[in-house]
Amino acid sequence: MLGSGMFRATVLTLFPEMFPGPLGLSLAGTALAEGVWSLEARDIRDHGLGRHRAVDDAPAGGGVGMVLRADVLAAAIDAALAPDDPRPRLMMSPRGAPLTQARVRALAAGPGALIVCGRFEGVDERVIAARGLEEVSIGDYVLSGGEVAALVLIDACVRLLPGVMGKEASGAEESFENGLLEYPHYTRPRDFEGRPIPEALLSGDHARIARWRREEAEKITRERRADILSS
Amino acid sequence: MLGSGMFRATVLTLFPEMFPGPLGLSLAGTALAEGVWSLEARDIRDHGLGRHRAVDDAPAGGGVGMVLRADVLAAAIDAALAPDDPRPRLMMSPRGAPLTQARVRALAAGPGALIVCGRFEGVDERVIAARGLEEVSIGDYVLSGGEVAALVLIDACVRLLPGVMGKEASGAEESFENGLLEYPHYTRPRDFEGRPIPEALLSGDHARIARWRREEAEKITRERRADILSS
Repeated sequence: MLGSGMFRATVLTLFPEMFPGPLGLSLAGTALAEGVWSLEARDIRDHGLGRHRAVDDAPAGGGVGMVLRADVLAAAIDAALAPDDPRPRLMMSPRGAPLTQARVRALAAGPGALIVCGRFEGVDERVIAARGLEEVSIGDYVLSGGEVAALVLIDACVRLLPGVMGKEASGAEESFENGLLEYPHYTRPRDFEGRPIPEALLSGDHARIARWRREEAEKITRERRADILSS
Repeated sequence: MLGSGMFRATVLTLFPEMFPGPLGLSLAGTALAEGVWSLEARDIRDHGLGRHRAVDDAPAGGGVGMVLRADVLAAAIDAALAPDDPRPRLMMSPRGAPLTQARVRALAAGPGALIVCGRFEGVDERVIAARGLEEVSIGDYVLSGGEVAALVLIDACVRLLPGVMGKEASGAEESFENGLLEYPHYTRPRDFEGRPIPEALLSGDHARIARWRREEAEKITRERRADILSS
């Protein structure tokens, strides 16, 4: 077993009803129902200010949009975490460190994560420092909020938990596991619209098949993603 | 207005009930209800074979997992698209071209997209070529399926559609819009746990504020993402 005990995800969001969403279905959903992992979505607005439970305010220095208040988010974090909670505190943000499969593996081997989802123009910078939030980016594009990014992060972790996906997930042949994109796949029918399955794969020669797959993986990686090729 | 007519997303998936999911809420959900964009999730299994509607089979050449059949996916694509449908045909895949904000902007300015979500070990390579699918990756990690990746792609596009997010989305100051990560944000209170709002932002001097933000954006980009700094 990886880690000690269950993988626990706690999400702070203004849209708790977005969770578990797609993670409540398919293999992740089955594992959630079986207690392989747990998910708690907490509403930041529960810590909003005044009778309107305000959570945001205008940006200091002017500009469009609204900024999530440091005091409100800090209160939500403090209410969600016991002081000795060992889980990493992440915040989904395009300014964060790009998520990698190595980071996913490390997270999946640990106790879970607290995941803060921003909305509006941004989050007051001071709460990031004061509560030790680690900004994580799922890619170089901008989303309407951190929620779909959190779904991605959790999905990537959960599929690696023992028993969730079976042997497939352990594969050292997946994309990024050996610095390469994955080789192409084929299955029946043998002929599809005049396109045959490559002959090597039908040879029954395991060494030849392994060599073909390795060469195809190297070729596709060189063509598409020379940036990730280990030199 | 961008483009001509509504942004239409057609998703091919084995889990149509994952859609609209989080995109049915918040600003994207409001815009969906108002007809600013449309979403159709189609079940690939409707084109499965035999009484069990099989969609996958064992990989040619052996190995773990199952591969989505070319003939089944081709039938699902052909049923979803009229021959003259001008929308790009995308397939979410870790082997694809990394999604960028520039690509998101181009997609949002167009008629929408057909988005294929893979599951299992992979998709038969021949249907990718035969139906001209463009593989798109949201990041260098592996997901349990293309569905959460499709949610990310659609969310990134929809927030840019006219009227969805208001002025915020047009901002040339967002991360990646000028080759930089975004500068830090602050709002009330002026003092948070002994941490003040930076003095420049309270100066009322617009030129000084703009300069401070530019310098902070350059600094944070240099520190975190030297790889995206235009030289």
